[in-house]
Amino acid sequence: MLKQVLIGGLCGSITLAVGILIGHYGVTKSGDSAPSWVKDVAKDVDENLIQQFLSEVDNVNIQENLRELTKVPHMATTAGDEQTVQFMLKRWQDPDTGLDQAWREEYMVYLSFPDRNKPNKVTVVNPSGTVLHAAREKEKPYTSDQEDPEVVQPYAAYSPPGHPKGKLVYANQGKLSDYSHLNQTVNLEGTIAITRYGGAGRGAKAIVAATYGIIGVLVYTDPLDINDGLMSDVNETYPHSWYLPPSGVERGAFGSDFGDMRTPYLAAKEDTYRIPEADIKGVPPIPIQPIGFEDAYILICALGGDAAPPEWQGGFNCTYNYGAPGFKPTSEFNNSDIKMDIFNYAKVVNSSNVMGVIRGSVEPDRYVMYGNHRDSWVHGAIDPSSGTSVMLEISSVLGRMVKQGKWRPRRSIVFGSWGAEEFGLIGSAEYAEEYVTKLSERTVAYINVDIAVFANATLRASGMPSMQNVIFKATKQVNAPGLDSTNVYDNWKCYFNRTSPTHGLIPRLGYLTGAGSDYAAFVHYLGITSMDMSYTYDRSKTSARIYPAYHTAYDTFDYASKFIDPGFVSHQAVARTAGNILIRLADSLVLPLNCSDYAESLEEYLKTAVDLYQEKLQAKKISMEPLKRAVASFRRAAEHLDELIRSSDLGNETPLKVRKINDQLMLVDRAFLNPLAFKDKYGYRHVIWASSNAGKPTFPGVADAFADAESSGLDSDWNKVHYHLSVRYSSRRRLAFPLSALLHWHQEDAMAEEGHVIDRHVSEVVRHQEHFHHSFVGIK
Amino acid sequence: MLKQVLIGGLCGSITLAVGILIGHYGVTKSGDSAPSWVKDVAKDVDENLIQQFLSEVDNVNIQENLRELTKVPHMATTAGDEQTVQFMLKRWQDPDTGLDQAWREEYMVYLSFPDRNKPNKVTVVNPSGTVLHAAREKEKPYTSDQEDPEVVQPYAAYSPPGHPKGKLVYANQGKLSDYSHLNQTVNLEGTIAITRYGGAGRGAKAIVAATYGIIGVLVYTDPLDINDGLMSDVNETYPHSWYLPPSGVERGAFGSDFGDMRTPYLAAKEDTYRIPEADIKGVPPIPIQPIGFEDAYILICALGGDAAPPEWQGGFNCTYNYGAPGFKPTSEFNNSDIKMDIFNYAKVVNSSNVMGVIRGSVEPDRYVMYGNHRDSWVHGAIDPSSGTSVMLEISSVLGRMVKQGKWRPRRSIVFGSWGAEEFGLIGSAEYAEEYVTKLSERTVAYINVDIAVFANATLRASGMPSMQNVIFKATKQVNAPGLDSTNVYDNWKCYFNRTSPTHGLIPRLGYLTGAGSDYAAFVHYLGITSMDMSYTYDRSKTSARIYPAYHTAYDTFDYASKFIDPGFVSHQAVARTAGNILIRLADSLVLPLNCSDYAESLEEYLKTAVDLYQEKLQAKKISMEPLKRAVASFRRAAEHLDELIRSSDLGNETPLKVRKINDQLMLVDRAFLNPLAFKDKYGYRHVIWASSNAGKPTFPGVADAFADAESSGLDSDWNKVHYHLSVRYSSRRRLAFPLSALLHWHQEDAMAEEGHVIDRHVSEVVRHQEHFHHSFVGIK
Repeated sequence: MLKQVLIGGLCGSITLAVGILIGHYGVTKSGDSAPSWVKDVAKDVDENLIQQFLSEVDNVNIQENLRELTKVPHMATTAGDEQTVQFMLKRWQDPDTGLDQAWREEYMVYLSFPDRNKPNKVTVVNPSGTVLHAAREKEKPYTSDQEDPEVVQPYAAYSPPGHPKGKLVYANQGKLSDYSHLNQTVNLEGTIAITRYGGAGRGAKAIVAATYGIIGVLVYTDPLDINDGLMSDVNETYPHSWYLPPSGVERGAFGSDFGDMRTPYLAAKEDTYRIPEADIKGVPPIPIQPIGFEDAYILICALGGDAAPPEWQGGFNCTYNYGAPGFKPTSEFNNSDIKMDIFNYAKVVNSSNVMGVIRGSVEPDRYVMYGNHRDSWVHGAIDPSSGTSVMLEISSVLGRMVKQGKWRPRRSIVFGSWGAEEFGLIGSAEYAEEYVTKLSERTVAYINVDIAVFANATLRASGMPSMQNVIFKATKQVNAPGLDSTNVYDNWKCYFNRTSPTHGLIPRLGYLTGAGSDYAAFVHYLGITSMDMSYTYDRSKTSARIYPAYHTAYDTFDYASKFIDPGFVSHQAVARTAGNILIRLADSLVLPLNCSDYAESLEEYLKTAVDLYQEKLQAKKISMEPLKRAVASFRRAAEHLDELIRSSDLGNETPLKVRKINDQLMLVDRAFLNPLAFKDKYGYRHVIWASSNAGKPTFPGVADAFADAESSGLDSDWNKVHYHLSVRYSSRRRLAFPLSALLHWHQEDAMAEEGHVIDRHVSEVVRHQEHFHHSFVGIK
Repeated sequence: MLKQVLIGGLCGSITLAVGILIGHYGVTKSGDSAPSWVKDVAKDVDENLIQQFLSEVDNVNIQENLRELTKVPHMATTAGDEQTVQFMLKRWQDPDTGLDQAWREEYMVYLSFPDRNKPNKVTVVNPSGTVLHAAREKEKPYTSDQEDPEVVQPYAAYSPPGHPKGKLVYANQGKLSDYSHLNQTVNLEGTIAITRYGGAGRGAKAIVAATYGIIGVLVYTDPLDINDGLMSDVNETYPHSWYLPPSGVERGAFGSDFGDMRTPYLAAKEDTYRIPEADIKGVPPIPIQPIGFEDAYILICALGGDAAPPEWQGGFNCTYNYGAPGFKPTSEFNNSDIKMDIFNYAKVVNSSNVMGVIRGSVEPDRYVMYGNHRDSWVHGAIDPSSGTSVMLEISSVLGRMVKQGKWRPRRSIVFGSWGAEEFGLIGSAEYAEEYVTKLSERTVAYINVDIAVFANATLRASGMPSMQNVIFKATKQVNAPGLDSTNVYDNWKCYFNRTSPTHGLIPRLGYLTGAGSDYAAFVHYLGITSMDMSYTYDRSKTSARIYPAYHTAYDTFDYASKFIDPGFVSHQAVARTAGNILIRLADSLVLPLNCSDYAESLEEYLKTAVDLYQEKLQAKKISMEPLKRAVASFRRAAEHLDELIRSSDLGNETPLKVRKINDQLMLVDRAFLNPLAFKDKYGYRHVIWASSNAGKPTFPGVADAFADAESSGLDSDWNKVHYHLSVRYSSRRRLAFPLSALLHWHQEDAMAEEGHVIDRHVSEVVRHQEHFHHSFVGIK
């Protein structure tokens, strides 16, 4: 009986267990089991994957990328450029390490070149027509690189052709104040000015010169500005060091705006309407030509007239005189003219971007973009191939993970290898103009890494303040090159830092207020949250304006591997940092963008504006209170949003709730766009980061309007200050708009949680009524 | 033993069953059961709910709404207006039938009023200063409504004050061609012109007049244009019929643009910068005043000079002469002048919108908007209170469902009761300017129902072509008023129809190219997919330009209930139709917007453009091929998207996939915005629907540029045609952009399905490569 009971009990237990198993696994809960995508949509960034990425980024790969990219000069639209197009396509279409897709995008763009058959000449000609001196036409070769017949002669792109002849004057940096000062002493009519690089935009040196009657401009790089004063190629300059050899010449584009000049606000496709060349704005009206300091030395030290002021003196071992105009009587050039023979010509020519994409798994319609230009002036080892080498290493580590089926980002990752950047950020700007709507609607962020490594001392980064946090997070996970026990973050903080009211002493993230690289169209025209980064100098060790081989025929693999980043460890650190940020932007459930950090920058802007303008505006009865209220509102809204994100269990919420928050984060910068705010500044629409003449970082439209009004004293100009306060920062419209949006999100969310149960009763709704009201209308 | 076996078997079965039950219900499948929101996010529109809505919409409620709204005159910013604000708030905050929230939004707007203490006067004065005739200052009373002291004297808002005196001329409709014709016969310098309403914008009649030296303008409604020729209030006009009594005067705003005039592109908040009054554009430079045809008859029939052409003759039983200038010698007014004494003044005054919202359950950050203005000129029974009565009935039927817990829409529904529309669509335009970013990012569609019922013959509707389908669907579900066996759709098709290449004979949906009501800022400034609808005339039965009491003191509840819609059944049909559309937009899983129908309209536009322009453009070497390609691409992309929606089982997909499609549909119109395309047209940014002078519906920028170029013959003007072809329709940028976006969606979707399995292999990706490539770059 006991046995029976035991058997019975055992059987019963087994039967029960079988039943439980059947019940659990065999009977489908009707409509109750979670669809497969429920987990996918809740997935957050995987820290292990980031570690794997960091460990796979290889310095030798970067070095080999660079070697390949710099085999030949690859100025935009040349055969060498096409070679790099093919190389990028090959890499991004590689079956083992490529992306899902890669393709080219072509634009017909307006570029300017010297004439191969009639080289530009700068000569000293005496009254009888004898040439006493001719500036060197090509840089002196030290490696075979400089002997490549495809090395373009130094020239100023978009300088008009022409043959001006006149007496030489020295105009320092060619700033408005320089010409104005010089004009007090010297009759500039019909002269040719020699200027140093720096201080003013390239094109501005000629544009402003022309207003003084100057008929031609020379520009050179002074050894004081680039070489810490060193000049000799016997033992001081490259190939003995990173310093610029005497014959080195910085090339460059001399236009003022970005994008193709003949198709403003239109993508430069074959059929696009092109404005007549005569209508192009912002280009030199008179010939301008860059020369090496070897020639500049000969010309400047022979100049007559009074000695220029101390701050105009450069690195030559002679006194820089103004020019009488012309050379001093004791010079062999006495009474001689400078003759410029410029044969530049412009043409509309096909330029390519190369695009590559890793399709997102969960939100393919959200793009994280990463780009750099591909075209160089000569071999461009540093500018831009250091960045391209880094981009290729990032894309191949990620591509391999994708091809092996180990990973697919939540959002799509789009890589861009832009063309014709050196001529005015053309490839990226045309791309932005063509895809303005799609990019605006879908792009989460843009990462730009152009020159990845200027020098190997420290990281330098700029970007929208909302990216500060993700940049910090990434830099803390990467070892500083050459410093085993220090991370990039701590090292960065030693070189660039500030004290934040919220975070204490932190690295200083710069602002993207200019148009120095391809981020310009993304920041200023599209209002896409962007960043730019590189490894750079220890400023205590050099005062070089930029790395000395910049835009010369010495910017080669040899130069980069010997003097900029031996071992390519700084490149590696940049690749690790940028790739880490990229993965976080692509994979995080909630976008790693922080609006409170944005608020902090706006508060700094406001403080500066109040300090600079409030007193004088009060005298004009223009109130800054609306601006103050708007900034305060933005701060409150940002904190509400932070709190919402912190306090929500978003992994277990409907993905539409997460999307809502992410859309809000994605679109914060778009809310600062105003297409009518800067009528005179091509492509600038972002009311916080537009360029301005303000000396200190503050609201650019207000700053410029204030400066104009102060200078003219006209009521109509003071009205413009008031307008700029209204159009952009007050009235719940701009700054306040994001606020209103943020608040609204916040409350909508609080309410949406309840909203899931649709048989909600009145009481709960009424409880939120006041909040909802306030939230919808904005600041109150 | 048998018993034991039986018992054992029974026990075993029970135990097994218990086990199954425990297993099924008692043991949670780890992470496998669907979260509660999975069903919510997949929910589609409920046809039963729509039927319930239709059955609950009540004509008597609408009648009582109207009675309440028309108790007193409620011109913008008056005490009567505030009374309607309070009424709207009370209704939308009602605990049983109200919305989740309701609140007011205030703007400080620039309005123009007559002076209560110094009424505007129009008199005939003989050379010795004797007043021979004075135009009536107030309309003749037939009900107590007209005796309300708050009835505003007829005036032309934004007419300047002034006291012009001069000889009278008759200028037909005050069009440019009318003045130009008149100027050939009569010296217009120093004259006062009398004009008929119609043919030109109100303000234009004075703006153009001033260029001919005319110093004042009168405007009246001719019986031929409004009353089918009838004139007598003894038995012909109101209160005997719907026709306008002789003393009735159409009031109106005489500005040309929409929105507050002193804060262009800015929300008119208290602190907003206001342009000086002298800088306001588009307002009459000379006094203008409307009068009744009772007075116009006396003036016109006394005019001297030659007889005006037949098409200038109106409904009076006399010959309309040009004026010599002045009256005929046989008239008692011989040698007399017209004297205008206009005392209008402008002020900045507080105007309110009333907003109400039903929060969405699944996508609270997507808004379906429904609006109408609240302000009238006098009692405004038809304009706008017929629309407001309908809106209130819709909102209370929906509100009741929400309050009873029976329903909550998927998306948020936002109602707007706009202020100061009659002065230039001000409330809605300021709202659009204040919330430009948020509305652009989140608004799915805007439904405008201003005058709900002009007459009771047929529906008339206008809107973006993408809304055609949902409008058709709704109209098929509503009985035509007075016709039991016919639905609104079939009845509509009898009155307005066209043959569609795709759908055959269908009702004709009009285009929203003008700025006739509050949809203007939504369509033209924000690029939000919009529609406007009303019940209207049988054109075979009347040639009235509009319902005769329009903007007069006779537009009262008495008038509406007796002559416009006795029984309020047409109001009911409009409420049912508009509410049906509203629910479908708010509840459908996939937005009921159809891009293929948009493509059909673009193809019609293109056909017209080719017919009108191609030959002459070819002669100027300007190709229309890019435009043709762009339209063809849009068509392909639209069909791809349709096919994707048709072939996908979206209820079982990740909600992010549905959201992606919906975002695409929501943003189609936004992709047609270009803030730089119409520099001279305030607030117009939509390149398809902007106003133009083209006689036929086609691309407005191209049409206007073509007209200018043909008239001037200048190369620079032909360049502008080429520019407009580029800026807006070619180069994959505008038309092509939606294409590209649509294609991209399509392919992304095809790929995203695969993408769920992240261990995808190369082969599948490569299979899509060509497609993906094409899709990303756009047209190829």
